[in-house]
Amino acid sequence: MKCFVTGGAGFIGSHLVEYLLEEHSVTVYDNLSLGRKEFIAHHLSNKNFKFIEADLLEFKKLKKSTKGHNIVFHLAANSDIGNNEITDTDLKNGTMATYNVLESMRLNKIGQIVFSSTSAVYGEAKIKPTPEDYGPLFPISFYGASKLASESLISSFCHNFLMKAWIFRFANIVGKNQTHGVIIDFINKLKINNKKLLILGNGEQSKPYLYVKDCVEGMLFGWKNSNEQINYYNLGCEDTTKVNKVANMVIEEMGFRNVNLEYTGKDRGWPGDVPQVRLDTTKINKLGFNARLSSNDAVKKSIKEILNQKS
Amino acid sequence: MKCFVTGGAGFIGSHLVEYLLEEHSVTVYDNLSLGRKEFIAHHLSNKNFKFIEADLLEFKKLKKSTKGHNIVFHLAANSDIGNNEITDTDLKNGTMATYNVLESMRLNKIGQIVFSSTSAVYGEAKIKPTPEDYGPLFPISFYGASKLASESLISSFCHNFLMKAWIFRFANIVGKNQTHGVIIDFINKLKINNKKLLILGNGEQSKPYLYVKDCVEGMLFGWKNSNEQINYYNLGCEDTTKVNKVANMVIEEMGFRNVNLEYTGKDRGWPGDVPQVRLDTTKINKLGFNARLSSNDAVKKSIKEILNQKS
Repeated sequence: MKCFVTGGAGFIGSHLVEYLLEEHSVTVYDNLSLGRKEFIAHHLSNKNFKFIEADLLEFKKLKKSTKGHNIVFHLAANSDIGNNEITDTDLKNGTMATYNVLESMRLNKIGQIVFSSTSAVYGEAKIKPTPEDYGPLFPISFYGASKLASESLISSFCHNFLMKAWIFRFANIVGKNQTHGVIIDFINKLKINNKKLLILGNGEQSKPYLYVKDCVEGMLFGWKNSNEQINYYNLGCEDTTKVNKVANMVIEEMGFRNVNLEYTGKDRGWPGDVPQVRLDTTKINKLGFNARLSSNDAVKKSIKEILNQKS
Repeated sequence: MKCFVTGGAGFIGSHLVEYLLEEHSVTVYDNLSLGRKEFIAHHLSNKNFKFIEADLLEFKKLKKSTKGHNIVFHLAANSDIGNNEITDTDLKNGTMATYNVLESMRLNKIGQIVFSSTSAVYGEAKIKPTPEDYGPLFPISFYGASKLASESLISSFCHNFLMKAWIFRFANIVGKNQTHGVIIDFINKLKINNKKLLILGNGEQSKPYLYVKDCVEGMLFGWKNSNEQINYYNLGCEDTTKVNKVANMVIEEMGFRNVNLEYTGKDRGWPGDVPQVRLDTTKINKLGFNARLSSNDAVKKSIKEILNQKS
């Protein structure tokens, strides 16, 4: 198949491209705002690979670039979400970008989309672990809002133009090529000062961390093994890791001792952060997919990989 | 209070303004794309009333106009939804317009929003009557998608900037000042030719029709009597009316006989139409509000009012 991957030079996208190239040809479309060319540089000589550096908001370019493909893996987004001072980043780079993807698919008669959504669509859910059919959906971050808006655009395009969609609501994804997030934050702070570590929130925030290869394998498994018009799955592990635990694992892996943990306080890291997340993954488990690594193991392996990559 | 009403010259907005002016001052902001100046003309000499003809996409104008108000009733939308050839109408006039409303509220420190959402956010729900906490939310119309996107923007703004919201998911609203919809469609067709009536779909579509004054009273009741950060209610009646029944009531009221009913066929009127809708209104009923008119009575009264208004 001819696969079009938005955000294909990004953290998760670059891993997805590795898998897709085993069987398919791949076009990566990325504006390199968070993605990095070095993550895909080794494919540039592959005749089944093409890289286009451009923005999803350039509609004409996108429409021309998607032509001739069979499926779009739409992973591009503003995933660095700890900022609520500028309020339209996700509206533009999430919602409107997704609209452009769908409209170019419609015009080019591309019938399949695989979409990276997020557990943030559930907001502060009253039911935990949270299943896919949970309601009401009141996201508290602009990121979550734009992912829910994107899901609803996908749903309406699917209905109106007989497309098919695979929507995956990700847990926190960790691993090699990660460009931001709590592990990177802690590593960077400790490199500057290994005597103290400032933790956003009270450190008791607890979330499921999914290893990036589990994430990509889960997406591909779901895509290959489900065939509704709209297929939607939580993608995570059932257990969680506390932010304090992540901090201690990073400190240990970096070989530091007697680091003074300091806290910004309050129950969450930033406005829009959901401090307690648990995902019900029964639906994709029943389909036949289980994450190989637990949350703690995913964090531990990722710390090692990121430190190796950085040094 | 100083109330700002978007879409205040429209069908539902113009009724809301009548009620609000009894206790408050009102600014109507409307681009008159669906609204009509004649619906609010009788207020123009009222010193507590102000009309601004402008579009929500003119952000600077909107920001300046909202300044000094205490609350926004955000009713403006593209509510004439039977068209899927242009796919970004609702993205612009729904989602992006709502973003502009919220951003201007944030900048002007306006802390309350009352929002007209829709039962279309539920898409083709598997549970009927559909309660507010139903999931998953996969709307099938661009209109429903933009209302869900707007709800999610409201939710994230509320969380980030401590605003409060009242979200009402409307049934089909009918009554005086209606500008489009099935009753108007039938009346217009019969005025041209009273021998036959073309019905979109198979006529078996069945939906709850809520009388516009019940709708506005329900909104105001919900706003005055609930005080969560995000208050959300279905607003409708529990019973429904079939499209064939609407057709026969219109024919009878217009005094015609032996009209040949013809059908475009299929189970729905247009792509994006949800043919079978039933709303669970237990939540607002328990709060203390009940619609006065049943669905059939609402349709009957509305046909009379619209015919009186047109002649």
